[in-house]
Amino acid sequence: MTTEILKGIRVADFSRVFAVPACAQILADLGAEVIKIEEPERGDEARYYGCNAEELEACGGVSPSFHALNRNKLSVGINLALEEGREAARQIVSTCDVVLHNFRVGTMEKFGLGYEDLRVLQPSLIYGEFSAYGPVGDLAKIGANDLALQAHSGLLHLTGEADRPPVRVGTAAIDLHAGMALSTAIMSALFHRERTGRGQFVETSLLRSSAHLMNYFYSEYWLTGKQRSRMGTANHLSVPNQVFPARDGYAVIIAPSDQMWDRCAKALNADRLVRPEFDTIANRQKHRDLLVGLLSGVTQQWPVDKLVQVLGDAKVNVAKVNSVGEAADDAQLEAIGGFLTQPEEDGGRKSVGMPFSMSEVDEIPFRSAPALGAHTRTVLVASGLPPQDFDRMASQGAFGSAFQKNS
Amino acid sequence: MTTEILKGIRVADFSRVFAVPACAQILADLGAEVIKIEEPERGDEARYYGCNAEELEACGGVSPSFHALNRNKLSVGINLALEEGREAARQIVSTCDVVLHNFRVGTMEKFGLGYEDLRVLQPSLIYGEFSAYGPVGDLAKIGANDLALQAHSGLLHLTGEADRPPVRVGTAAIDLHAGMALSTAIMSALFHRERTGRGQFVETSLLRSSAHLMNYFYSEYWLTGKQRSRMGTANHLSVPNQVFPARDGYAVIIAPSDQMWDRCAKALNADRLVRPEFDTIANRQKHRDLLVGLLSGVTQQWPVDKLVQVLGDAKVNVAKVNSVGEAADDAQLEAIGGFLTQPEEDGGRKSVGMPFSMSEVDEIPFRSAPALGAHTRTVLVASGLPPQDFDRMASQGAFGSAFQKNS
Repeated sequence: MTTEILKGIRVADFSRVFAVPACAQILADLGAEVIKIEEPERGDEARYYGCNAEELEACGGVSPSFHALNRNKLSVGINLALEEGREAARQIVSTCDVVLHNFRVGTMEKFGLGYEDLRVLQPSLIYGEFSAYGPVGDLAKIGANDLALQAHSGLLHLTGEADRPPVRVGTAAIDLHAGMALSTAIMSALFHRERTGRGQFVETSLLRSSAHLMNYFYSEYWLTGKQRSRMGTANHLSVPNQVFPARDGYAVIIAPSDQMWDRCAKALNADRLVRPEFDTIANRQKHRDLLVGLLSGVTQQWPVDKLVQVLGDAKVNVAKVNSVGEAADDAQLEAIGGFLTQPEEDGGRKSVGMPFSMSEVDEIPFRSAPALGAHTRTVLVASGLPPQDFDRMASQGAFGSAFQKNS
Repeated sequence: MTTEILKGIRVADFSRVFAVPACAQILADLGAEVIKIEEPERGDEARYYGCNAEELEACGGVSPSFHALNRNKLSVGINLALEEGREAARQIVSTCDVVLHNFRVGTMEKFGLGYEDLRVLQPSLIYGEFSAYGPVGDLAKIGANDLALQAHSGLLHLTGEADRPPVRVGTAAIDLHAGMALSTAIMSALFHRERTGRGQFVETSLLRSSAHLMNYFYSEYWLTGKQRSRMGTANHLSVPNQVFPARDGYAVIIAPSDQMWDRCAKALNADRLVRPEFDTIANRQKHRDLLVGLLSGVTQQWPVDKLVQVLGDAKVNVAKVNSVGEAADDAQLEAIGGFLTQPEEDGGRKSVGMPFSMSEVDEIPFRSAPALGAHTRTVLVASGLPPQDFDRMASQGAFGSAFQKNS
């Protein structure tokens, strides 16, 4: 029997793209009814990310990114530029416990859907807002993407080889971390509401998320003035603790203690690694370049799979640098229940699960990411809108061209 | 008036280093009483990360990393290798609502502190466990750090220049994201407990965290077979959307739409950027290398501050590649309340705040990261341990050498 942690909780999610949809998907996974309110003609632009027309078709009509972040949600298409559309949105929100959005500051207020508007009639409403640079200050009105905040936060400066230009973190880490921060905020507000009956306004931004990911670097700078810079794959704390080349790939080797370093040298049958310059932690740090050079010379003669196996057997910390496919197909991810799989008759797709498990929850549902506007009528009627009002508003364009009858 | 969301909640945190302490700090910021249980002689090794002896002294005795992740906590030093120590730990836990740890699988069970042991007397206990590769499967017993999971997950493969070896993400993103995931899990469990009275076991890992950060890449691979590879700072979705060199630094320029590209070319007074090869989105993608080369040739003649100002004024998405210090001292981070500052008399330190704000919470407290074992006696007596029992256990070494009286 599955316990739905968020049974009975209803979420009106006006957001698009990555961060807030990721949060909304966690709420949906935990059993909330998540109503994704989208512009009715094109919807959330993530529906089309990274795909040409054939690829979209092959993926069942939406992009892999949209699949990854929008399972278990209902889709309602509403044109918020029309007063009828805003009336419909307010009808939905009046039945909801949580509102989420990532519009520019002031937009929801223009729609009559700002927190101060809604809290009057719904004092227990939880309202979650998300922005690029935060809700106040000189940059409050500026939109930005994950890469811009990688730059702004110093993360880009720290990523890359020491003597070459910076490179981006290969995934939208600031976006997805912000989605996780918002999830914690929403759950904290729901907890508080259980205790007190009161709702509240919670908020995060790419800026807060990026600062959290950089927090120990900022602390180091504030406390000591020291500023780190990029070091390739190396780490100032210990040696070896970086990527080494194999004959046909790369592996991370982490062997900073004396005992582990000994085992590493022995496992690789490499006499050249056994020398006084490398016999203590301090000496290995001191002769870092020599050590890294010699160890690289050894590892690049090994096939990567054998290198990882031999070092792993010797209890040296090692990890293969996996491609995306090797990582996705990894047996350990499967063993821990790290992804969900649909039944074949529903599409048989796989999707990474939420990043934690809970013993009171046996099973996470997996309903495919919704077609645009698929649940418009059902949700609105269930929200208390009389069917004849729905039809009137539909003919006025409140739900987009798909609902406008030919006269 | 500050509302403490977690007022009255008591947390026994046995964890060390980054991920779980980051979670515990969020609980402490929200008003929980967080009791950090440490090995009594050296404590959490993060106390010493990245610092020599002079630097430690200058930072008030603990490393900047420890400051960044351990405010608002109490520290208790307990030697869990001794039965008296385990008895003391069980005394604390018996008064707690939440237990957190990141020991190797099986360790807490050996101490009589496993979830199955504790839930019998404390059915509403929330127990949070954390591991590198998850609690089951072939890799369950293997320790690993953030870099190893960057490699294992495919994130390392995606980070770096296209024709050069991979580089690490410059911060411990998988660690801190896992801490955020655990925070969501704990708050979800606390919510569930408010509704049902029942506790539960929650769990996460670097593996789950890394898969979540990579989820849309895995979805793309599972759905289409396509596997991405590293691209420097570029992005396959749009052009330009990457880092460009300035005369004295770097800036990210994102101008993928026709109108924004026009404004970019005009703002830079660069006729060479106005050409038919660049006049549509499709053409700019097609002639990516030419565009990037020409735009780089223009930008590297500009001082970075002027480049950012001129493009920002023209409403082109731009962000300077800040150093750590520039990012930490950024006016926008201050404007949004992104960090906390202690009063001068408490040390006057700054620390990045939790990555979200809540309207029911006016102010987050900021008590410095605790000295090792500073609250051992107070916490144990407050947990119901009679003072004479404390003294007996202390003399037997339960709380380390600092508490052993000379005979």
